[in-house]
Amino acid sequence: MALLVEKTTSGREYKVKDMSQADFGRLEIELAEVEMPGLMSCRTEFGPSQPFKGAKITGSLHMTIQTAVLIETLTALGAEVRWCSCNIFSTQDHAASAIARDSAAVFAWKGETLQEYWWCTERALDWGPDGGPDLIVDDGGDATLLIHEGVKAEEIYEKNGTLPDPSSTDNAEFQIVLTIIKDGLKTDPKRYHKMKQRLVGVSEETTTGVKRLYQMQANGTLLFPAINVNDSVTKSKFDNLYGCRHSLPDGLMRATDVMIAGKVAVVAGYGDVGKGCAAAMKQAGARVIVTEIDPICALQALMEGLQVLPLEDVVSEADIFVTTTGNKDIIMVDHMRKMKNNAIVCNIGHFDNEIDMLGLETFPGVKRITIKPQTDSFVMSCSFTNQVIAQLELWNERTSGKYEKKVYVLPKHLDEKVAALHLAKLGAKLTKLSKDQADYISVPIEGPYKPAHYRY
Amino acid sequence: MALLVEKTTSGREYKVKDMSQADFGRLEIELAEVEMPGLMSCRTEFGPSQPFKGAKITGSLHMTIQTAVLIETLTALGAEVRWCSCNIFSTQDHAASAIARDSAAVFAWKGETLQEYWWCTERALDWGPDGGPDLIVDDGGDATLLIHEGVKAEEIYEKNGTLPDPSSTDNAEFQIVLTIIKDGLKTDPKRYHKMKQRLVGVSEETTTGVKRLYQMQANGTLLFPAINVNDSVTKSKFDNLYGCRHSLPDGLMRATDVMIAGKVAVVAGYGDVGKGCAAAMKQAGARVIVTEIDPICALQALMEGLQVLPLEDVVSEADIFVTTTGNKDIIMVDHMRKMKNNAIVCNIGHFDNEIDMLGLETFPGVKRITIKPQTDSFVMSCSFTNQVIAQLELWNERTSGKYEKKVYVLPKHLDEKVAALHLAKLGAKLTKLSKDQADYISVPIEGPYKPAHYRY
Amino acid sequence: MALLVEKTTSGREYKVKDMSQADFGRLEIELAEVEMPGLMSCRTEFGPSQPFKGAKITGSLHMTIQTAVLIETLTALGAEVRWCSCNIFSTQDHAASAIARDSAAVFAWKGETLQEYWWCTERALDWGPDGGPDLIVDDGGDATLLIHEGVKAEEIYEKNGTLPDPSSTDNAEFQIVLTIIKDGLKTDPKRYHKMKQRLVGVSEETTTGVKRLYQMQANGTLLFPAINVNDSVTKSKFDNLYGCRHSLPDGLMRATDVMIAGKVAVVAGYGDVGKGCAAAMKQAGARVIVTEIDPICALQALMEGLQVLPLEDVVSEADIFVTTTGNKDIIMVDHMRKMKNNAIVCNIGHFDNEIDMLGLETFPGVKRITIKPQTDSFVMSCSFTNQVIAQLELWNERTSGKYEKKVYVLPKHLDEKVAALHLAKLGAKLTKLSKDQADYISVPIEGPYKPAHYRY
Amino acid sequence: MALLVEKTTSGREYKVKDMSQADFGRLEIELAEVEMPGLMSCRTEFGPSQPFKGAKITGSLHMTIQTAVLIETLTALGAEVRWCSCNIFSTQDHAASAIARDSAAVFAWKGETLQEYWWCTERALDWGPDGGPDLIVDDGGDATLLIHEGVKAEEIYEKNGTLPDPSSTDNAEFQIVLTIIKDGLKTDPKRYHKMKQRLVGVSEETTTGVKRLYQMQANGTLLFPAINVNDSVTKSKFDNLYGCRHSLPDGLMRATDVMIAGKVAVVAGYGDVGKGCAAAMKQAGARVIVTEIDPICALQALMEGLQVLPLEDVVSEADIFVTTTGNKDIIMVDHMRKMKNNAIVCNIGHFDNEIDMLGLETFPGVKRITIKPQTDSFVMSCSFTNQVIAQLELWNERTSGKYEKKVYVLPKHLDEKVAALHLAKLGAKLTKLSKDQADYISVPIEGPYKPAHYRY
Repeated sequence: MALLVEKTTSGREYKVKDMSQADFGRLEIELAEVEMPGLMSCRTEFGPSQPFKGAKITGSLHMTIQTAVLIETLTALGAEVRWCSCNIFSTQDHAASAIARDSAAVFAWKGETLQEYWWCTERALDWGPDGGPDLIVDDGGDATLLIHEGVKAEEIYEKNGTLPDPSSTDNAEFQIVLTIIKDGLKTDPKRYHKMKQRLVGVSEETTTGVKRLYQMQANGTLLFPAINVNDSVTKSKFDNLYGCRHSLPDGLMRATDVMIAGKVAVVAGYGDVGKGCAAAMKQAGARVIVTEIDPICALQALMEGLQVLPLEDVVSEADIFVTTTGNKDIIMVDHMRKMKNNAIVCNIGHFDNEIDMLGLETFPGVKRITIKPQTDSFVMSCSFTNQVIAQLELWNERTSGKYEKKVYVLPKHLDEKVAALHLAKLGAKLTKLSKDQADYISVPIEGPYKPAHYRY
Repeated sequence: MALLVEKTTSGREYKVKDMSQADFGRLEIELAEVEMPGLMSCRTEFGPSQPFKGAKITGSLHMTIQTAVLIETLTALGAEVRWCSCNIFSTQDHAASAIARDSAAVFAWKGETLQEYWWCTERALDWGPDGGPDLIVDDGGDATLLIHEGVKAEEIYEKNGTLPDPSSTDNAEFQIVLTIIKDGLKTDPKRYHKMKQRLVGVSEETTTGVKRLYQMQANGTLLFPAINVNDSVTKSKFDNLYGCRHSLPDGLMRATDVMIAGKVAVVAGYGDVGKGCAAAMKQAGARVIVTEIDPICALQALMEGLQVLPLEDVVSEADIFVTTTGNKDIIMVDHMRKMKNNAIVCNIGHFDNEIDMLGLETFPGVKRITIKPQTDSFVMSCSFTNQVIAQLELWNERTSGKYEKKVYVLPKHLDEKVAALHLAKLGAKLTKLSKDQADYISVPIEGPYKPAHYRY
Repeated sequence: MALLVEKTTSGREYKVKDMSQADFGRLEIELAEVEMPGLMSCRTEFGPSQPFKGAKITGSLHMTIQTAVLIETLTALGAEVRWCSCNIFSTQDHAASAIARDSAAVFAWKGETLQEYWWCTERALDWGPDGGPDLIVDDGGDATLLIHEGVKAEEIYEKNGTLPDPSSTDNAEFQIVLTIIKDGLKTDPKRYHKMKQRLVGVSEETTTGVKRLYQMQANGTLLFPAINVNDSVTKSKFDNLYGCRHSLPDGLMRATDVMIAGKVAVVAGYGDVGKGCAAAMKQAGARVIVTEIDPICALQALMEGLQVLPLEDVVSEADIFVTTTGNKDIIMVDHMRKMKNNAIVCNIGHFDNEIDMLGLETFPGVKRITIKPQTDSFVMSCSFTNQVIAQLELWNERTSGKYEKKVYVLPKHLDEKVAALHLAKLGAKLTKLSKDQADYISVPIEGPYKPAHYRY
Repeated sequence: MALLVEKTTSGREYKVKDMSQADFGRLEIELAEVEMPGLMSCRTEFGPSQPFKGAKITGSLHMTIQTAVLIETLTALGAEVRWCSCNIFSTQDHAASAIARDSAAVFAWKGETLQEYWWCTERALDWGPDGGPDLIVDDGGDATLLIHEGVKAEEIYEKNGTLPDPSSTDNAEFQIVLTIIKDGLKTDPKRYHKMKQRLVGVSEETTTGVKRLYQMQANGTLLFPAINVNDSVTKSKFDNLYGCRHSLPDGLMRATDVMIAGKVAVVAGYGDVGKGCAAAMKQAGARVIVTEIDPICALQALMEGLQVLPLEDVVSEADIFVTTTGNKDIIMVDHMRKMKNNAIVCNIGHFDNEIDMLGLETFPGVKRITIKPQTDSFVMSCSFTNQVIAQLELWNERTSGKYEKKVYVLPKHLDEKVAALHLAKLGAKLTKLSKDQADYISVPIEGPYKPAHYRY
């Protein structure tokens, strides 16, 4: 492989597209900081005590301007950081170069091949012969996967000298993973064991990664503690409900320049994402129809004055279709054939298989419209502050035994902390409980204020 | 005590205010049925199979027109029913008389004394010498309390012949409870044991009652299974969020006839009740300011464009104050002294001690305004359908051992069932999962569709 | 006729239902004053200079608590006042008695016969032998009508001695009017001429009255200047748009106690009243469908996400029907036969012939539901402040010749004045134009700020 | 001047940037057609009768994709068309080339010099020796200005042989205008007189152009009839209220990528533009504060729950500032010095002097943010359909004498026609008046339905 690690004058390793974009990246990072008050409040509140002193953190998460603010929050709290992206397309090169120049080892560029992608991941995990990182920030679970597969391969190798066999799988990407582990094994047959040994834990950002973690917990194969950041209130409600309420009209207007008022919009699914999308469409003057499988969510839609009908009943009448289900095969090419000329079909759910992309691409003459990724700094501020707080919690409790090899959601008082770190910037002042009041409702004065099953 | 049970010509026992109001009650019951589609769908779906055949049900729950529809749903499914109110003021006498005449044994009237109240409760539990009811529908937990206290007293009496001593407590109401148990003990020293023996379980309607149940579970003193209906999504979100969104402006306008548009409204607390109240005030054209102790809820308020400030900062500027906290001492008389002339102060939270009623009553010249109780049939339809479904579940599983002496929330598939029972009436049609889609998101085709921690 | 005028100890004439309700009336007047900041600001601003000194004002306008605040604003500015109601049912007796006792001559009670109604009107116009009032506040135009008919009859009588012949008309009410004029003629054949002579002008409150005035202007028969208060922005937008947005849900909930959320509401007409009603229903969680004849208003409805369909297309699907058209025959009994059980039909338009009341009353078994009249003080504050300002304008210009025998809308600077009189109470602070800015947009610094055709 | 007119193979004159962009322009025109149902309905309804047969139309209006749809609607109705842009920056070159190739003579490109701009205008007016166009579509009034100045100069020249003197003015642009007229005079001293002679009238698009027309009417110098399209309801409400409600968040998000929810937005001015902006900001989750000089608009803001305060009171607290006043000097550099770091300041009003651009540019370190122009096809559809209908009216009445040398707003029935032409595409169905109903409210069955002073 022709990939070579480069070094800054100060000796920091990196591999990015174009170091000359660092100044532009720095400018945008400074603008983003104002929109990420949670992270900036972390720097103010925790920076002086350097709680991450001595901690090595590896991150595998879209290398964007917003992530740059996250990385520099981690370093401002005392951590050393190595970073790669969790997606071959999502790196913003000016962000990567600014971080590489100023703050952390970065291995990421827009448009990596799959081989380059895993090379970057492996570089980000490589902290030298003493083992890997103390902590991982993961998004989708690829860094976590590599260590788990590495440990598994080393165990087999130790037992019977068998090396991983990339040709044993049809999955092209997994062949690459096995090749990397195989190459590593030849150099150091205990490499991933040393990583596992050192690792305090991982904080995971997304549904997909969290799903993998729960599966490993269920199988008893999880090697270190994990905090599920995805299901914090300040992550899930804010990314999903408020984030999509903001991003859907933004994306629609950028992609299509149509007037939303007066149109009929179908929102498939009325979970948090669907609620945000339906609210946005309604407020912009569209008439909104919801499709749902879940009667509770359907009843909620009705209480907001929205019609609930199956897609089949409205497919030829609507102008805009938005899928938010997290399921597949929601809008099929046969639906699209019945749509009006110039109907807009977009997916803001998890994967693009909510829409029958295959059928669409093989069907001549139907237009494909891509909605921009959701990258609003403020929403990311909640999500990333969760990451910092989760990393801090793992690090602070590294010797206490509080966290076993299980998946944890962020404790409610830390979820509340993430919210609290945002309030001053938004001009809010909280009311304080008196001792007497706190006793009356049986909560500590300083929180947490709600039972675990509270729905917000 | 001069209270005498009366009997209908068919032999049904009752004690109500005025049997001549039965026709008027029947008329209003018929109107309410249209607004309670969940209960009516229960009759349609479950009536033919008579699932409550052989079940004796005692209810302690406000004896209103809406409750009448609940009672007659229980009887339509095959149950025998005895009923009392759970509040000395809340009975609607025309509802009570219609039920007494047509459907069930009722002991309830508007304006009971505390002594009469407990007499009614005891009557409702008395199904003759073979023990009490099979099932209890409770609201606030007074029927459950009486049985628990009765059993406790019987055990002491059996052990050492000691009768309960009403003078052992300062609490006037508890003195009455002890007196009733004492009188009962003389007649049948195993009465409450027989009740406990027979009882399949209780379904509890409110926060207060649920709290008591969890305390008994924690102390190991709970005598039979309990279903916490209060925390079903179809109860909590609908009663709190949608119910209060509907009831607050209704109550405000009936009580005061003021224009809400253009006014400044302070909503204390931004939980589900507060969210509903704030939405209602905002939509009516008020400018809304929220007070909160919880940073997560505060951040949610900000995301809706609402200002978050402590009461002290806005007390002299606002026109309308609504307390929704479930806590005490929210608006004190000293706050009220700083308010504008004609400021409106109202409580839609749990108890009226959110407002400093004592300070207010002893402070000359300040006006007291009472908001009408929340009695909208449709909201009650969700809540009461939960009761029916919970009772059915307890009864169906009475021999399976599924429910131990613990407190359970309604299983999610039953919560979804409650929602589903309402959809047809509202013209909604659900989308159906394919087998393939259901597998993809790992849920059964017929639900439940969401994990336990899902927040709706 | 057995009707006798009574007198207070101070000699003021009156005829009301029950003088003992005066204290209760006074209490409610005091509460209403806080909600009518426009009128109270008039008292503060104009009271000291007593601009109505010497002016005799007759009012024919619903004798309610809100009107009481209007009357006492007129007297606070120096006027002498005589008052009757403009509707046989609308008088609030406690309001009438408080005014009769404290402030003005009142001839009004709830439930007058038509004969009593016109007797009251004639009493209110009778200021003794020197002629009638200087100014009239009219609502529907009955006081204005009586004078015009009186003058016409006197002219004929003078010409040829012919008295009016009540039997010449089939209209029962007009027979009464003619009888009153005939009786008057015998006493004083110049009575209405003297009234006309003295009259400075009338300010008219409603559409119906305004229509009559424009017809008289077109026919050349208008006897004195008239100000059309009905079409002031601060009257029309506030009564119609904001007033109905407030009153519709209030009335619906008081009359029916139904939950609006989840229902389908049809709003017939999308003028200001319809816009207010549709907004209220949408905000309460209903799905709203609009019917319209006017394509501009239809397009406006679409821009707000509302469906526009003819009544026929939705009559069997909707739960709530609201007529706002000002036209007749909107919802016929044949429509009602196709509606769902328990459908709610209400009219918030001008006359009840928007709904086929005749067909309904003769059709057995269909339910009739009456919505409470719209009496919110704040909305009335705008409307009545218009009346005071119009009366002041007429009185101030009584000798200038500014107003001829024509119908005028209130000049825009006075319309703006009405708004300005409300702002302080609502905590608003206006921005001030600089001289330079005022010149740039070619308006006077102190307003008016908008061209005549501006639509707000 | 090196500018040379080019010709298509069919002989059509043009001067555009790059003819090779015509295919791309055509593609975008086809997409825009779907979003401009008013224009497309015009083609369907009026195309067959070719009402513009024989009419030569000159347009001076931003040469964009939307304008291309307007031009091709005019040609589809039988007109011959020549076109220039009314702004040196606004031409979309692919639109210009598609039109030049396929439909009309175009003289326009992005980035004209002022000299090139007026050359294009003069080319668009030049229909050869027989005089100019029959009709003008104007936006800002430059085509109208050139003819008026030309006629004035020709009169002076005829009187005393004096040619216009460009050095007589300091205004650089007016020097160019005078030079063009002077050059023309030498060739044909009756050129603009012939144009004036032939001209049936102009329909004018904007406030600025309309202002000039009313001034000329007041001075008695207007040379031909003019229709003020700017103040049609379907133009003013739709461009301003709905258009800005749509465009403001769109522009904000494109320019800044900030989350609007949770922010404080100040909207300066609460006319139609301000109402649209405030609604958009409120719906996106911002807290909105309005500044106003007009008490009526201020009261309207309060009725929507918005705070009304002077800029000075909120300048240091808000995050987003939007000027909508149409006045100058609204936000000065001294205001901006007091703003928060990263505050966003934008102008959606008429000229950029609402914001102190001069002060800003000379003040070091303050950031300047430009909001994208408002170009949504649907809004333009209303506006441009007004143009077509106005042009048709002028042409149809060219010999009837209906229109004198005055400024007219579009008759209400034509305003309604514009709305009607949009309804089918949006799925709306109008209700039809019966003869009886139409008589009852005194309007023709087919409209117009509202009096002139109706405010919508």
